[in-house]
Amino acid sequence: MIGVATCSRIDLHTLYRPVFSQVAPELTLLRPEEVTRPEEVTFALSFVPAADAFAPYSGLRAIFSAGAGTDAIDACPSRPDGVPVYRVEEPDQALQMAGFAAFHVLWHHRGMGRYLAQQSGAIWQREVEGLSPRTRRVGVLGMGHMGRVIARALVALGYPVAGYSRRMPEPREPGVTHFTDGMLDGFLARSDILINVLPLTPETDGLIDAAFLAGLPAGAALIQLGRGGQVDEAALIAALDAGHLSGASLDVFRTEPLPADSPLWSHPGVLVTPHVASIPDFADVVTSIRQRLLALPST
Amino acid sequence: MIGVATCSRIDLHTLYRPVFSQVAPELTLLRPEEVTRPEEVTFALSFVPAADAFAPYSGLRAIFSAGAGTDAIDACPSRPDGVPVYRVEEPDQALQMAGFAAFHVLWHHRGMGRYLAQQSGAIWQREVEGLSPRTRRVGVLGMGHMGRVIARALVALGYPVAGYSRRMPEPREPGVTHFTDGMLDGFLARSDILINVLPLTPETDGLIDAAFLAGLPAGAALIQLGRGGQVDEAALIAALDAGHLSGASLDVFRTEPLPADSPLWSHPGVLVTPHVASIPDFADVVTSIRQRLLALPST
Repeated sequence: MIGVATCSRIDLHTLYRPVFSQVAPELTLLRPEEVTRPEEVTFALSFVPAADAFAPYSGLRAIFSAGAGTDAIDACPSRPDGVPVYRVEEPDQALQMAGFAAFHVLWHHRGMGRYLAQQSGAIWQREVEGLSPRTRRVGVLGMGHMGRVIARALVALGYPVAGYSRRMPEPREPGVTHFTDGMLDGFLARSDILINVLPLTPETDGLIDAAFLAGLPAGAALIQLGRGGQVDEAALIAALDAGHLSGASLDVFRTEPLPADSPLWSHPGVLVTPHVASIPDFADVVTSIRQRLLALPST
Repeated sequence: MIGVATCSRIDLHTLYRPVFSQVAPELTLLRPEEVTRPEEVTFALSFVPAADAFAPYSGLRAIFSAGAGTDAIDACPSRPDGVPVYRVEEPDQALQMAGFAAFHVLWHHRGMGRYLAQQSGAIWQREVEGLSPRTRRVGVLGMGHMGRVIARALVALGYPVAGYSRRMPEPREPGVTHFTDGMLDGFLARSDILINVLPLTPETDGLIDAAFLAGLPAGAALIQLGRGGQVDEAALIAALDAGHLSGASLDVFRTEPLPADSPLWSHPGVLVTPHVASIPDFADVVTSIRQRLLALPST
């Protein structure tokens, strides 16, 4: 079967061609310019496709996202109706996300930035209050594949954890207080540390705005692992400057790479990472693509 | 009942007196200079006692450590034989330790220090290889009360976890590979990230020396949460400088506070924290002291 790697942001062909050769040699991954018979292209691998990315391929039967989100593919004008879009959903990526989230929960809860600053001055000064995980209520916004694994790890670390999802997840997650549709205000009001892992959809675009942030308790911290478009960056900076938020960890941004002149880089309350919370294992992605393609009904 | 707070390092009286008043009003905690009838002192609260700390109290029935370790109390020349020494052993403190350990595992595994440095230069550069927790084998040296909880949390985060203890713990910890007496070499050889939570005893004093560190795989990281006396600091620096170790997180030191002229403060591979991995909740400590004292046989 022939596939095309078509993404405007990442050179997926260079990253994935060797993995296809090794894990799924019966699948051939081409660059768009290498395709001689577009009608023979069966699948596409993408993450952020150009507007006309899928237009040439009349025989497309499946589109695979190279990441956990499919928002850019869903919104692509040339995406043919009726062709399924698959996202990466593998346990390893959720575990990466859980570790990354746990790091930032501890960073904010235990004030680790202060100790790094103290070290540079050879200063031995201990904070001995509020070390118990009981003292920080963590909220996981988005209780899908990733949110569940994050919540589970934070329960193991002793934090009081709540999860928000539109519908009650089945099965429920042991030790987690579940909030559902209509209960967002109550969920935010009890989240001293909020971890966002919602997908980007028309409903979540711009969700984290001034009113949303005002709904968090005073001194709360935001850990933003969803999509950049969900956060009103000016409102976030205002909430930090006003002291309502104590800090924020941001891994995703409206514009990526984050422009060098963004005030987020140098804000003392903000920890910036370059969209590295989780990256699917390439071999796992190709294995799952191969399984999906083999399961397609024959034509 | 009357108790005495006798510690050469921490002013336990100031910290604990108000907690005793609130949680255990029937227990009176005095400073040594406040004691008028030493023979009526039933219990002592200490952490690092002076050599003659316990000498005046002929009626002592129990000694409580304000921390998880009892090494300094055990070694105190004036500790009367036959008087039990109790250490803090409460789930909350183990959870604090687990969160602190998880933070440092992620710090080393995901190279978080690099991202902090990049942020200060507004540099967007992603490391996309080796993000899976499968790529780092974690070893927990000491599978007691704390080691177990640490191991459990790291299993929840997807790391391959082994635990070392002299005897096989009962029950075994699900998902953990257990190593016991005589298997230390094999345990070290498979620990890309080693977390030490052993107590300080004559056997563990100076344990982490050049030969020990050479037994870790190349590129390993050390997370030292036990007691400072266990680490040969010169050997540790040599192993870092030689590139055999990729980094170290140190929370405890042979001399505390760590002297301002220690080379550890400024070593690029070392993260120094001022003995803050876990601090027991004062109310929990007093509640447990109260329970132990009430359970003493009447005289």
